[in-house]
Amino acid sequence: MDNDFGWEKNVRKVVPYTPGEQPRETDIIKLNTNENPYPPCKEVRELLDGFDTYKMRLYPDPDAGVLVSALADFYRVDKEQVFVGVGSDDVISMIFMTFFNSDKPILFPDITYSFYDVWAEVYRIPYKRIPLDDDFRINADDYICENGGIIFPNPNAPTGVLESVEMIESILKENKDSVVVIDEAYIDFGGKSCLELVDKYDNLLVVQTFSKSRSMAGMRIGFAIGSKKLIRYLNDVKFSINSYTMNPLTQICGAAAVKDADHFNECTKKIIDTREKAKKELSELGFDFPDSSSNFIFARHKTMPAAEIFQKLKDRKIFVRYWNKPRISEYLRITIGTDEQMERLYEALREIIAL
Amino acid sequence: MDNDFGWEKNVRKVVPYTPGEQPRETDIIKLNTNENPYPPCKEVRELLDGFDTYKMRLYPDPDAGVLVSALADFYRVDKEQVFVGVGSDDVISMIFMTFFNSDKPILFPDITYSFYDVWAEVYRIPYKRIPLDDDFRINADDYICENGGIIFPNPNAPTGVLESVEMIESILKENKDSVVVIDEAYIDFGGKSCLELVDKYDNLLVVQTFSKSRSMAGMRIGFAIGSKKLIRYLNDVKFSINSYTMNPLTQICGAAAVKDADHFNECTKKIIDTREKAKKELSELGFDFPDSSSNFIFARHKTMPAAEIFQKLKDRKIFVRYWNKPRISEYLRITIGTDEQMERLYEALREIIAL
Repeated sequence: MDNDFGWEKNVRKVVPYTPGEQPRETDIIKLNTNENPYPPCKEVRELLDGFDTYKMRLYPDPDAGVLVSALADFYRVDKEQVFVGVGSDDVISMIFMTFFNSDKPILFPDITYSFYDVWAEVYRIPYKRIPLDDDFRINADDYICENGGIIFPNPNAPTGVLESVEMIESILKENKDSVVVIDEAYIDFGGKSCLELVDKYDNLLVVQTFSKSRSMAGMRIGFAIGSKKLIRYLNDVKFSINSYTMNPLTQICGAAAVKDADHFNECTKKIIDTREKAKKELSELGFDFPDSSSNFIFARHKTMPAAEIFQKLKDRKIFVRYWNKPRISEYLRITIGTDEQMERLYEALREIIAL
Repeated sequence: MDNDFGWEKNVRKVVPYTPGEQPRETDIIKLNTNENPYPPCKEVRELLDGFDTYKMRLYPDPDAGVLVSALADFYRVDKEQVFVGVGSDDVISMIFMTFFNSDKPILFPDITYSFYDVWAEVYRIPYKRIPLDDDFRINADDYICENGGIIFPNPNAPTGVLESVEMIESILKENKDSVVVIDEAYIDFGGKSCLELVDKYDNLLVVQTFSKSRSMAGMRIGFAIGSKKLIRYLNDVKFSINSYTMNPLTQICGAAAVKDADHFNECTKKIIDTREKAKKELSELGFDFPDSSSNFIFARHKTMPAAEIFQKLKDRKIFVRYWNKPRISEYLRITIGTDEQMERLYEALREIIAL
């Protein structure tokens, strides 16, 4: 890029994140982007029906008050402790920009959500990847060193491995000069959230999303909960970039999703049950995997290469996720679908592996 | 802020943009944020009714293909020349981050959209404000100097003053090493767009929005049209920040709005007619104003201070916009409402000014 001239010299050049495929065909089984196989709560239908489209002409509430209030009530925190964004990617991106402005590197695991290094690159933030151990576990001691911030998902992605609240607290205790971000995108599938720590550590941000457990990946809602001070700084940056990010339909549908706790509990329970069954089925098919607390399983076959299984599943219109990257190129990340979708997966795998 | 310690040291501290008030009362006349007084196209009702809410569980098309295609067709450009974002604020913010990375200052008028300096501050971009002349006009020669980029609205805000395509081309001719951004938020109210120049200048970006002329401020849609090279760089940054920014309802409603050219033409014509009538009425009431080509009028009264009129209108539940800033503290920005709303404004002004 040294031979850039003219206006191209001053372009921020980056290598973007590659999202999972969103195939257009409808007759496929889509187990590649950790979406929820169940519908969102029923009230969203009535909300769309009842929405006064004349209101589309007006700017939305920039504070997304109805959604922030619903979240504050559900998680029993103050409204001033809740930040909402257009998906948790929006929230985490804003966190990187707001809090990771040190010369010291931020820390995250070597195997993790593959957007972290992309955000670090686009914002020119130094970073250091800390290797997970051979069981894909995080070693808390590795995070006790000079750093410009810490972020990891819990459960981790794409491994599905859950760490304990105690382990996270041990990291927090030694990192009072850094903002520590726990990305709990998958926490509702059986994990224990560290939300209980936000009142104790004013440098802790817990990020969650509506894209998995609340069946609303399409509506784009993510949120962070933390100390009022952290949330105020985040909002200052948000309101320096785009005042009105969330449309009113998203705000009201999101609030309804939070309020329908029964639907939420029912869907997450079904997914957990299907996942536990999947662990047995995949073991019998010759896969091994770290124990998953999420809505996916990160599985490796004892004999057949992951790339081959990936392609053969795709030929059968079953999409899972595969990365040809160091340490994980022998694994497939399989999203937990409905029981019926999973049966079709096992059937396909039996065919593929027997070949 | 020198006494920051711990994690607060590394916070990106900013003074956010202050959007116009969004009062919650419904019995007010809201002429303060340049929204369109007419409803969006009728098809949005059917689109909400027909939307399969089960699809909310899926991530949306990250490329917003249906909307990008509709815009490409309408403006007769290639799809690869169209970038869409969550409002034109999202689009312009992304442009600042992508293209304004020079040590030289970017240039914009001293009186203009008050978000430009906020973006420059949040992204730590050097900038220089170029004074408008006493008639609030842009002098092209002022933009012929070393710079890191150029941006201004046309028509300008909050003045409403339109500059010619020829004048803009004269700036482009002398600035081939900078990205030049023309923010055409208000172009559909009688101005001539410089979209015709995008195929001639690969460093020109034209930004427009659905928030004014298309009655969709609530749905958050903005777009930029430019050379394929510019759009590719913009998309690389966008996909390094948030892959999925636009929900499917926004995508389909936005596409419908673009396709319904009759509704669009009808509403913009009504607003233009009302604006021309408003010019006469406001003159008779003792106001003067630069000639407006937008959906607002930037007016100053010959005897009564703007701050006083602003407050007295507010007491009567009529909201207009006022800035207590150098050079413009004697002006009110009045959005063009329906004829009925404007009659009530004139009535109130007659009372206020006669007092």
